[in-house]
Amino acid sequence: MNDRIAHSAIPDAAEFARRIESLRGQMALDNLAAVLIPSADPHLSEYLPERWQGRQWLSGFTGSVGTLVVTADFAGVWVDSRYWTQAEAQLAGTGIVLMKMMGGQQTAPHVEWLAAHVDSGDVIGVDGAVLGVAAARSLADALKARGIVLRTDVDLLDSIWPTRPGLPEAPIYEHAAPHASVSRADKLAQVREALRAKDAQWHFVSTLDDLAWIFNLRGGDVSYNPVFVAHALIGTDDATIFIADGKVSAELEESLARDNVRVAPYADAPRALAALPARATLLIDPRRITHGLLEQVPSAVTIVEGVNPSTFAKSQKTAAEAEHIRATMEQDGAALAEFFAWFENALGRERITELTIDEKLTAARARRPGFVTLSFGTIAGFNANGAMPHYRATEASHSVIEGNGLLLIDSGGQYVSGTTDITRVVPVGEITAEHKRDFTIVLKGTMALSRARFPRGIRSPMLDSIARAPIWEASADYGHGTGHGVGYFLNVHEGPQVISHYAPAESWTAMEEGMITSIEPGIYRPGKWGIRIENLVLNRSAGKTEFGDFLDFETLTLCPIDTRCIDLALLREDERAWLNAYHEEVRRRVSPHVSGTALAWLEKRTQAI
Amino acid sequence: MNDRIAHSAIPDAAEFARRIESLRGQMALDNLAAVLIPSADPHLSEYLPERWQGRQWLSGFTGSVGTLVVTADFAGVWVDSRYWTQAEAQLAGTGIVLMKMMGGQQTAPHVEWLAAHVDSGDVIGVDGAVLGVAAARSLADALKARGIVLRTDVDLLDSIWPTRPGLPEAPIYEHAAPHASVSRADKLAQVREALRAKDAQWHFVSTLDDLAWIFNLRGGDVSYNPVFVAHALIGTDDATIFIADGKVSAELEESLARDNVRVAPYADAPRALAALPARATLLIDPRRITHGLLEQVPSAVTIVEGVNPSTFAKSQKTAAEAEHIRATMEQDGAALAEFFAWFENALGRERITELTIDEKLTAARARRPGFVTLSFGTIAGFNANGAMPHYRATEASHSVIEGNGLLLIDSGGQYVSGTTDITRVVPVGEITAEHKRDFTIVLKGTMALSRARFPRGIRSPMLDSIARAPIWEASADYGHGTGHGVGYFLNVHEGPQVISHYAPAESWTAMEEGMITSIEPGIYRPGKWGIRIENLVLNRSAGKTEFGDFLDFETLTLCPIDTRCIDLALLREDERAWLNAYHEEVRRRVSPHVSGTALAWLEKRTQAI
Repeated sequence: MNDRIAHSAIPDAAEFARRIESLRGQMALDNLAAVLIPSADPHLSEYLPERWQGRQWLSGFTGSVGTLVVTADFAGVWVDSRYWTQAEAQLAGTGIVLMKMMGGQQTAPHVEWLAAHVDSGDVIGVDGAVLGVAAARSLADALKARGIVLRTDVDLLDSIWPTRPGLPEAPIYEHAAPHASVSRADKLAQVREALRAKDAQWHFVSTLDDLAWIFNLRGGDVSYNPVFVAHALIGTDDATIFIADGKVSAELEESLARDNVRVAPYADAPRALAALPARATLLIDPRRITHGLLEQVPSAVTIVEGVNPSTFAKSQKTAAEAEHIRATMEQDGAALAEFFAWFENALGRERITELTIDEKLTAARARRPGFVTLSFGTIAGFNANGAMPHYRATEASHSVIEGNGLLLIDSGGQYVSGTTDITRVVPVGEITAEHKRDFTIVLKGTMALSRARFPRGIRSPMLDSIARAPIWEASADYGHGTGHGVGYFLNVHEGPQVISHYAPAESWTAMEEGMITSIEPGIYRPGKWGIRIENLVLNRSAGKTEFGDFLDFETLTLCPIDTRCIDLALLREDERAWLNAYHEEVRRRVSPHVSGTALAWLEKRTQAI
Repeated sequence: MNDRIAHSAIPDAAEFARRIESLRGQMALDNLAAVLIPSADPHLSEYLPERWQGRQWLSGFTGSVGTLVVTADFAGVWVDSRYWTQAEAQLAGTGIVLMKMMGGQQTAPHVEWLAAHVDSGDVIGVDGAVLGVAAARSLADALKARGIVLRTDVDLLDSIWPTRPGLPEAPIYEHAAPHASVSRADKLAQVREALRAKDAQWHFVSTLDDLAWIFNLRGGDVSYNPVFVAHALIGTDDATIFIADGKVSAELEESLARDNVRVAPYADAPRALAALPARATLLIDPRRITHGLLEQVPSAVTIVEGVNPSTFAKSQKTAAEAEHIRATMEQDGAALAEFFAWFENALGRERITELTIDEKLTAARARRPGFVTLSFGTIAGFNANGAMPHYRATEASHSVIEGNGLLLIDSGGQYVSGTTDITRVVPVGEITAEHKRDFTIVLKGTMALSRARFPRGIRSPMLDSIARAPIWEASADYGHGTGHGVGYFLNVHEGPQVISHYAPAESWTAMEEGMITSIEPGIYRPGKWGIRIENLVLNRSAGKTEFGDFLDFETLTLCPIDTRCIDLALLREDERAWLNAYHEEVRRRVSPHVSGTALAWLEKRTQAI
């Protein structure tokens, strides 16, 4: 999957208009000409706890990305093309304008809008507690050039949002051996080694998956990602995690104490930064810490900027983790086989909707060992719904699977032994030559990159065109990235690597052994159908030659790619051979874990072509 | 070709040591702890007039890129991997240290060295007149952080280089219709249109090929590039070109005056910037103007930064220019056919050296209509010499073409109707299976990108991996970019596009219709052989679909690719078909321009395989 949609009960349009008015009332009291409300929390997470879903509460727009700007006579949400259709529907009648962002822009268009529409000398407010340092810098620079003042010490939501939720309260638990293959002490030692290399004694971490990885802890504070809301300050000998009260058991606290890790109240994090000793050197990741927190650091402290060392370390899975993931993929593949066997049998006999698919598939995964939760909300889109890459069926709006066409299912699970993410497209009834042509072209893209070899250290965005070349060749394209990093019983989207030509090709996106990435090209025909074929792959060594170290991909995902959708005339012989070998591997590894109709389905759908 | 090597008479090592000592004497007088001498001129050109080859004069290192740093007890040249072998030889005995730069570094390592080795409070000198604005900024920032002072108003070369050459004196001439397809007045109008779009009234241009393009003028001030040393200040109604005396005829001056273009002395350029009216807005390209010039601009002038509008405009060749280039490629292909026919016949009968090849090939081109000069120094490298991508045979050191192996020839011509650049590799005597394997793999890379279709506007560095994928697949790679933009009777290296994953993927590198780019992957086996297969290609429209505008490449270069070097077992059927179609096109278009042995050779070497 390549992103998500948040959900909650939906008030009517007039209510959102009232909320914007109440924000304007507060702005007037504070003398603010404009307020900017990003989709962000103090941890700069992808999935926000409800407490920080202020943009959604104010506007009604539920997309995962989008920035709300409100002035006395304007309110607008800047939204990228993935969410235009959704935003148009959700903003209708609210008086809030949909501001369409174009792909490939390097600057933030809402910042340009503010610079052009706010008068010199006026004040713009934004909550620095949810604003990344890098974003705050470019915002401040752009506004300063126009003589506009930026205030970052305002959080207007508290005063206008009476039912604003508090901090999430899910308990925190250990991610224990054997599934955690490196001890907390060893991970802290790795981080400290990285600190020494940068002459830093202190490191502050706000990113939830970094924290979960470093401390071998998991939680349930946000949907789909097994993380918990916290910050941490790591020193040369000890560390402090800042967590809301009541989430750490006495037993866990003792376990942490044995590794010199202290638990402190969540609200103490800013004070701990403010109390750093003079002449200390602090490593922070400017893209992963908020402006509000960084402002707490005394000026006598030297700040070293860099990607969080844990971001690199957790992306490079250990050999033991890779083994756990392989086993997990067999179980996930078995769950998928059971689901698809049921689906093909039930089709035309019982009523199946996009929601039924989510239920049945989730149930099949839940029967598998080590399953904890989904890794994102299942995307099941039939025909035109499949053409929306971030479609999510709801009770109020979903399709029945009947007639003819293509069904796209993008789903994944969180297991204690790994995280999965897979997209398959299957035929329903009769499909056309056009369906098959698009499917085959996308498959060629998935295969082209899956088979690629490349130099270790290549900046991952540079690999994107290998997947796209066969799709571009057919004068088609897709508006999302080709691949995202995937965590180990952690976020289904993680860095530092990203296979997307839309992403900046920074040196820290380099490909290294052990990384897990999705390969998920697609073709979307709005109003008609959508196709995406997604596997997870592991970077493995492909040897060293006089030209350097090379990597290639081990395909981890084990589930048939529906050969009924293939136009064989478009496949080259070497592509057909790759697909047949893949299906042989899927059958070999998944069949021990299924029986009955699921086994029969697996054998049928892995037949060579 | 992908770069060049400059040449001059070579003094002995002790002389370079003396020159460094004399520089140190001057540094002591000026109280400078260190001096930095980049490879640059006031126009930030690739090819430097001798006057600005100070780094070469001081160190003896003749590579086109490299930065000299001298302190009281250290002298070193920072050199990238292309030039390590050459620099090691040329610096031997001078006391100047070869400082090896690694690929893919984002920061300048000599700046880091200076920051680490110069004391806080000390002064570093560099000539601001040859230092780009962007380079000056990063240098100043890095040094300021360490408390080091940067002086940019020093040019120590004048005082220690008694025989320093003056400004080049070649006359300037019109690039006239029909070969110039757009008039000077229309080009100035295009530039002024771009200025208006940026709310600028003034534009200062230092880049020599931008100036040649805007004013439809050509010159002979540097090797291979038909440009002249000048600056220009363009206003809303008139423009001034700053040129050394005696280079513009009275007739040409009148012709320029008719387009409201005034000619002024070269030395007046800084004064013209200093005299800009208050409240003026000036567009400059910070990567294309020196720090020394920009410092002249009064602080009351608003500076707008952006890529020179002419850089975009000249990269997108008009339909008329494309037609001229097609005809030029037929002539260039005919010259190559005559050369190769001679070569194959002479091999084993007369003594052929790498230098003979340059002579014969240059003579064949010189017989063709509209030929002006080579577009770069011919690279003819036999066996191990071919493994050095920037090898240049000299009187003192060159190989005889005899025995067995591979001969690489990278060459090109400047014609009034276009610029060519082609690399071919041909067999000599018996070649091995390894030769053929490497050749075929490189050919697969050249073909893969030549056949690609891609979205208009894609950032060109993103296309690099399409050419590399077949080469990476064989666990091989090459340390240079895959393609550079090529001018129209202008520089053989021009921007803004660059097909190289080493290059920053900036938005201004976007692919647009009409651009001409090289495709030149390679494999180099040091001490053994080198292979590079290079064609020029033209971006042409491949139509519009619901997914956007697409481009593909028209291969412009017309010369057989030697099929005797191909391992047919490694070619796919579709690759073989592409190559056969290419050879049919080469035969069809070049045969009308050759006869006798050249025609016979052309027919033989374009046979289908």
